[in-house]
Amino acid sequence: MKLDKSNFSEWFDTVLREAGVFDYGRYPVKGMGVWPPFGFKLRKYVLNIIREYLDSTGHEEVLFPVLIPKTLLEKESEHIRGFEDEVFWVTKGGREALDIPLALRPTSETAISYMEALWISSYKQLPMKLYQIVPVYRYETKATRPLIRLREVSTFKEAHTAHATFEDADEQCAEAIEIYKKIYDRLGIPYMINQRPSWDKFAGALYTVAFDTVMPDGRVLQIGTVHHLGQNFSIPFEIRFHTEDGDKDYVWQTSYGLSDRVIASLIAVHGDDRGLVLPPEVAPVQVVVVPIPQKDEEAQRKVLEEARRVKEALEEKGWRAVLDDREELTPGAKYYEWELKGVPFRIEIGKKEVEGEELTVARRDLKRRVKVRKEELDQRLREMSAEFLDNIKKRAWDFMKSRIKRVESLEEAKELVEKRYVVEMPWCGREECGLKVDEEVGRVLGIPLDSESAAEGKRCPVCGREAKWWVRVAKTY
Amino acid sequence: MKLDKSNFSEWFDTVLREAGVFDYGRYPVKGMGVWPPFGFKLRKYVLNIIREYLDSTGHEEVLFPVLIPKTLLEKESEHIRGFEDEVFWVTKGGREALDIPLALRPTSETAISYMEALWISSYKQLPMKLYQIVPVYRYETKATRPLIRLREVSTFKEAHTAHATFEDADEQCAEAIEIYKKIYDRLGIPYMINQRPSWDKFAGALYTVAFDTVMPDGRVLQIGTVHHLGQNFSIPFEIRFHTEDGDKDYVWQTSYGLSDRVIASLIAVHGDDRGLVLPPEVAPVQVVVVPIPQKDEEAQRKVLEEARRVKEALEEKGWRAVLDDREELTPGAKYYEWELKGVPFRIEIGKKEVEGEELTVARRDLKRRVKVRKEELDQRLREMSAEFLDNIKKRAWDFMKSRIKRVESLEEAKELVEKRYVVEMPWCGREECGLKVDEEVGRVLGIPLDSESAAEGKRCPVCGREAKWWVRVAKTY
Repeated sequence: MKLDKSNFSEWFDTVLREAGVFDYGRYPVKGMGVWPPFGFKLRKYVLNIIREYLDSTGHEEVLFPVLIPKTLLEKESEHIRGFEDEVFWVTKGGREALDIPLALRPTSETAISYMEALWISSYKQLPMKLYQIVPVYRYETKATRPLIRLREVSTFKEAHTAHATFEDADEQCAEAIEIYKKIYDRLGIPYMINQRPSWDKFAGALYTVAFDTVMPDGRVLQIGTVHHLGQNFSIPFEIRFHTEDGDKDYVWQTSYGLSDRVIASLIAVHGDDRGLVLPPEVAPVQVVVVPIPQKDEEAQRKVLEEARRVKEALEEKGWRAVLDDREELTPGAKYYEWELKGVPFRIEIGKKEVEGEELTVARRDLKRRVKVRKEELDQRLREMSAEFLDNIKKRAWDFMKSRIKRVESLEEAKELVEKRYVVEMPWCGREECGLKVDEEVGRVLGIPLDSESAAEGKRCPVCGREAKWWVRVAKTY
Repeated sequence: MKLDKSNFSEWFDTVLREAGVFDYGRYPVKGMGVWPPFGFKLRKYVLNIIREYLDSTGHEEVLFPVLIPKTLLEKESEHIRGFEDEVFWVTKGGREALDIPLALRPTSETAISYMEALWISSYKQLPMKLYQIVPVYRYETKATRPLIRLREVSTFKEAHTAHATFEDADEQCAEAIEIYKKIYDRLGIPYMINQRPSWDKFAGALYTVAFDTVMPDGRVLQIGTVHHLGQNFSIPFEIRFHTEDGDKDYVWQTSYGLSDRVIASLIAVHGDDRGLVLPPEVAPVQVVVVPIPQKDEEAQRKVLEEARRVKEALEEKGWRAVLDDREELTPGAKYYEWELKGVPFRIEIGKKEVEGEELTVARRDLKRRVKVRKEELDQRLREMSAEFLDNIKKRAWDFMKSRIKRVESLEEAKELVEKRYVVEMPWCGREECGLKVDEEVGRVLGIPLDSESAAEGKRCPVCGREAKWWVRVAKTY
């Protein structure tokens, strides 16, 4: 197997399969795959980070049924219009036809709003900040891709919050954005934050803010969304509460989600021609210890003994360490395999390491070896883990930034988008011009919220009117 | 709300709802409920225990799709016969009819066997011990009950293992039984271990061993099952491997599962007329600190300060502690609420506790207060947590044992089963007699594996032949 990241699409599918992250394309339902043990662990450590930030900001985890009655899904009219063409329907139970078809949840605004109407009665219960991590289902008609466009999105973190005022919900969106920034920073994944244009917001939202990243092939992947739902769901679902001044009002809601794409982007932005490059915090195996075979039996015994000692010392300090003492494989074959799996640190134990005071640590990010004094191993690995993340993070951000260009003409925009750049172009803010850009240039990602968005003194290249904003445009997944 | 455990069915539904464990009967799909935050935490701590024993015995967690094509589900003929009347079918995607109906997984033997055929090629990969914790779906026609008989079993831990020989699979069943014993012991839940009769084994298994417990109303609840699957799945799914001697063979499989019923039984066996009684290890809140209101403002300030200090000191030591400083509620109202939620320890802080060296700790299991020196609080709570579990465990085991009686005649058996006892009666071992007992006396749970099962010198009360075994019979859920 030859890996070549410049052919990203093939690289991605191969790495997922060969490294044991996600078994895709073989399970006999289109658009659905299996998390084998290695990938499941990676997913677990990533979810730990997501849960940490949500739990520490007052979000509470819940679990709702996967099935939503058609009647419920239809209650908010824009919402159902946005989803009806891509819902999987359960229509039979045993040998009986069901009275009301049941949808496999495409998202849970309707299910959660229904229960919130029963749960919420007073302003004292607000804000109510709930989340769940569940699979969601979309009968995608576009080409499916592992972890990127699935019919079973096996990991969907959806948060749903209810508030007393518009402003509180607005601030909640800001908190959600801060949380997502922290999550992506911790994984070293670069992001743009774009306010989606009105024609591309979530079905049922007042506004949608999205996190986007640039994949190695230059196409943009949406990796998170935050929605202000206003009272669009609370009115049809009658989620009313007693306000502090004794009135009654409908709650104001938000929802925000992350999916398998967190892991897709983690793999895509950091990986290289040898395979995965995983930040130490989420690597299923953080350190692999490889004994170098010795001809002399006694030397061999000592090498193995030292390798075992190092592995156990690491485990005692909390490292996820593996001793690879398989006899049928050469050290080279082992290096190849563990590099493919993105193990951040490899410690090679030979005769010199048995006798001396130093160990040799190969770093996956730098592809080079460093010497570490035995008694400093734990401490140095800790330091190197921080450097590792900084290093791959900087590389990833540099790449993304290099793919974003400001332009002022439609011609330039088309040309660069064709070459898979993200362009920032001036825009008058009118839907008419935006839709034209969508059609002729590339997908309008929206107005940047992570940099200066006012385009003073510029002209909209579509209509020639004075521009209000810079707007980002790109080819997307 | 009045709780009365002697009316178990109503008690159970009320406690689940009022304590916030599981919101059932209000979500608009029959047989499906919602885990709200408190219940979700309880579920999480219970799952931590389950995962701990599985992970430490070499089981690896995976995640498979919820949808299984009809063609796959039908591959093992006995299996599909056992499930076909209770499968939810997805038949539509968007506006299109699907070519092949997709089942919501009732259990995953078929999905996992399908992938194992791709994964397994050599004896070196065996045993392969996988598990997943997922929802499963059964279109139940019997009356549904929260956490006991659901159409969406929202928590199903299913383990699936593959082995090189019959004996290895047999030993794996023994390991599974040991793991389940440890899990239930850690939760203080008493169990019988019964080998199910041939006519009541899992659809597709060689044999099934079940864990059963006795609910407060005397009816038996199956709370875990372990199946030796032989080669019943590996042959139709063609899971072949190279044996150590260079032959090819089909793997030998087992599967074993636990469900929401772990939590149902936890609540049922330990609860009382005040509500939940939760073992400290899994209690979402382990200690609640309640300040006693003081008329004097300065005294009130000091009480609150001390309450806060105690709560923070507890949290620092890793306790899940809550300070209940709500002003609108009396201490009595707070006690009521936290007792309902099964909080193991309550610390009341009044003037005496501010000034003195001792704290007052109310124990949920004993319903009495004990004095603890402030500097010994953490240590004493640790000791009391162990005593707490021992105490409720002994009470639960005593109850269960008191509900099991040996009898030798059909008359006695009928009478006692009618009174909701579990009877142990001699049995010749022939299916004919077993089915008659099933029909006339109560459900045949099977041969006890947790006590002497040989019934030497006894006669089968149905046919009068010499008895081989004691067999347990009871009314079941």
